[in-house]
Amino acid sequence: MTELLDVFARRVREPDFVAASAQKFLELGRRAGRFPVATAWRDGTTAEIDVWCSNDYLGMGQHPAVLAATKQAVDEFGAGAGGSRYIAGTNRYHMLLERELAELHGKESALLFSSGYMANDGSLTVLAGQAADCLVFSDELNHASIIDGLRHSGAQKHVFRHNDTGHLEQLLANADPDRPKLIVIESVYSMTGDIAPLAEIARLAERYRAMTFLDEVHAVGMYGPQGAGIAARDGLADRFTVVMGTLAKGFGTTGGYIAGPTAVVEAVSAFARPFIFTTALPPAVAAGALAAVRHLRTSEVERDRLKENARVLHQQLRAAGIPFLSDHTHIVSVLVGSDSACRELAALLLDRHGIYIQAIAGPSIPAGHEILRIAPDATHTPDEVRSLAAILDGLWKELGLPFSPR
Amino acid sequence: MTELLDVFARRVREPDFVAASAQKFLELGRRAGRFPVATAWRDGTTAEIDVWCSNDYLGMGQHPAVLAATKQAVDEFGAGAGGSRYIAGTNRYHMLLERELAELHGKESALLFSSGYMANDGSLTVLAGQAADCLVFSDELNHASIIDGLRHSGAQKHVFRHNDTGHLEQLLANADPDRPKLIVIESVYSMTGDIAPLAEIARLAERYRAMTFLDEVHAVGMYGPQGAGIAARDGLADRFTVVMGTLAKGFGTTGGYIAGPTAVVEAVSAFARPFIFTTALPPAVAAGALAAVRHLRTSEVERDRLKENARVLHQQLRAAGIPFLSDHTHIVSVLVGSDSACRELAALLLDRHGIYIQAIAGPSIPAGHEILRIAPDATHTPDEVRSLAAILDGLWKELGLPFSPR
Repeated sequence: MTELLDVFARRVREPDFVAASAQKFLELGRRAGRFPVATAWRDGTTAEIDVWCSNDYLGMGQHPAVLAATKQAVDEFGAGAGGSRYIAGTNRYHMLLERELAELHGKESALLFSSGYMANDGSLTVLAGQAADCLVFSDELNHASIIDGLRHSGAQKHVFRHNDTGHLEQLLANADPDRPKLIVIESVYSMTGDIAPLAEIARLAERYRAMTFLDEVHAVGMYGPQGAGIAARDGLADRFTVVMGTLAKGFGTTGGYIAGPTAVVEAVSAFARPFIFTTALPPAVAAGALAAVRHLRTSEVERDRLKENARVLHQQLRAAGIPFLSDHTHIVSVLVGSDSACRELAALLLDRHGIYIQAIAGPSIPAGHEILRIAPDATHTPDEVRSLAAILDGLWKELGLPFSPR
Repeated sequence: MTELLDVFARRVREPDFVAASAQKFLELGRRAGRFPVATAWRDGTTAEIDVWCSNDYLGMGQHPAVLAATKQAVDEFGAGAGGSRYIAGTNRYHMLLERELAELHGKESALLFSSGYMANDGSLTVLAGQAADCLVFSDELNHASIIDGLRHSGAQKHVFRHNDTGHLEQLLANADPDRPKLIVIESVYSMTGDIAPLAEIARLAERYRAMTFLDEVHAVGMYGPQGAGIAARDGLADRFTVVMGTLAKGFGTTGGYIAGPTAVVEAVSAFARPFIFTTALPPAVAAGALAAVRHLRTSEVERDRLKENARVLHQQLRAAGIPFLSDHTHIVSVLVGSDSACRELAALLLDRHGIYIQAIAGPSIPAGHEILRIAPDATHTPDEVRSLAAILDGLWKELGLPFSPR
């Protein structure tokens, strides 16, 4: 007889598990008003560190307008929503935020979810799952939440090689022309930091009459006019059916959303179980996010700082010969390529220099592709970026890691 | 050629969809400090209404200690967590709250999720999915998030009739004794408001050596010593392996959690994709929830009020002969049994009396079982409960709805 509890007691003693969970949560308190500074609690002591791997890319999580709006809404409407969206949980700020996001993306409607994971999982389960014969085309580097939503839809899926529009076209051309089609991509990929060839994908979608679902979580707030994302930057926003975004990165709070045609948004709100069967976001979170979205629709300061910091980091790393995956965006993934070296590098940065960059291994990244994913954000200064690159260069030599060929 | 967008354009014009979406979100602003009063925005006008269907059962969403803790954490750590739990997003309040929840339930460890849906989906996918031959036994009225998590696990599942331990034992007795087993139940069922026969289920779990997963979302904060739930109330907490709870109902904020043996919690944190691939809860939400949990571990006032209001409502409805599903708890589901009557009743309550009780139909409830799910909470007074029952009695007669046999 096998008891299930024994299965877990054994599982957590297996070598792969022990190795994976050597990576414990780093207990932090990011200091509002002093980002990127955070207090770290480790082994019974505290230290001040600099965070270089947050997704609060623009520092909106400490913006005075966001904090004021959050606290005012707490006073006005309390801590929680008090129910699901259908049952007593729809707050005025949810509605205002949905209208603002629809307007930001130039779409008819928008719908909030409690998290980006739920937005992708819930929406794609419905979008790919309503038509029994839907055929999905999905980039191989799409996020876990996209993979899960598509899996949960039960739809047949073709995975195309990352950003390879030739491969995508080949799959589209070979598919039954009568079946409804859905192409699912991201604009900025979370681990590689590169950008999808949106114009060509839009062209293919139109040619093969496929609906499109564009995940812009690492772009909204950061790119394009008013922070509307990469598709908007490239003048392509109206050529993608559904845009998906997050409030947790560029907008500094939490939650996910989709924006698109009303018929699509209504179908998702009627059928997406992670939307229906969950307590709505706290009104104060929606109020804070609304303040962030509104601020970033008119302010360029944060985007300019982010862009400059990314440019300086690309330049410095290139000059030092430290390999990184892409210079398209602010996501600068330094390729270490070994789990142990990656962890050692991260530990030295933290212990010796108070620099926190999380080593990324599985399941986010395949073995041999381990990276230090640096996210210089708008709260750093270009001098701090230069100093980081110099420290990294020193450690790279110290550990004998391979430099790029010049 | 079928285009996917056309599928949705047609779908939202079909009669069942149009009927279902006649139920729009009611746009609310619950007034902190004045719960259950809320402002409702409808058709361009506003009105003050009383909410009788919130899951903020104890009114903790407006408790001064919760609001103060929330606002203080906003000032301290900002609006959002800034990352996932593994990457820069673990805040000190997450750790403190997890320790507090483990202690509340007398378990080794606890783990937070962004929502209760994600806690059930993520945990059960792992718990039922790690052992390839796991066999699950699930109550037929388990919540959508449990159903989805079990489905996503791929495990073989037996559904037993609601609260029918004879049926459960029959299924257990017929199962291969060598397969690892998991029994999944709720303590308080969300739509019927009745309580599971926990002692008998614990006995069966021990006899057939099954692990147990007990969803206490409608009980934590409200029942048992320190608000630890129904299993704790009945002295059975240590006989259930994993307790799952929410911060969005009795604790008035948002988020979900599990508490259980460390090996189980570690496995879930290592493998549950809705945990790994999501931004952590805002620190201020965790701080507010922590204040709510701590308050309810020592205060009985809110629980006593809730209990008294539920008792009065049961008594009044019984005296009036208005049928309801269970008198076990504060969830008082009045059985209307027809979708149109249910909607009409809800509309009259709201329009004439400013009383908001959401009519519940599919997909939460099967056709013919439509209910008005009343949740008298700790912020109502017994006189308001009596007045509600009298109004309901009047409308029941006006609409010619069937009274219970005396």
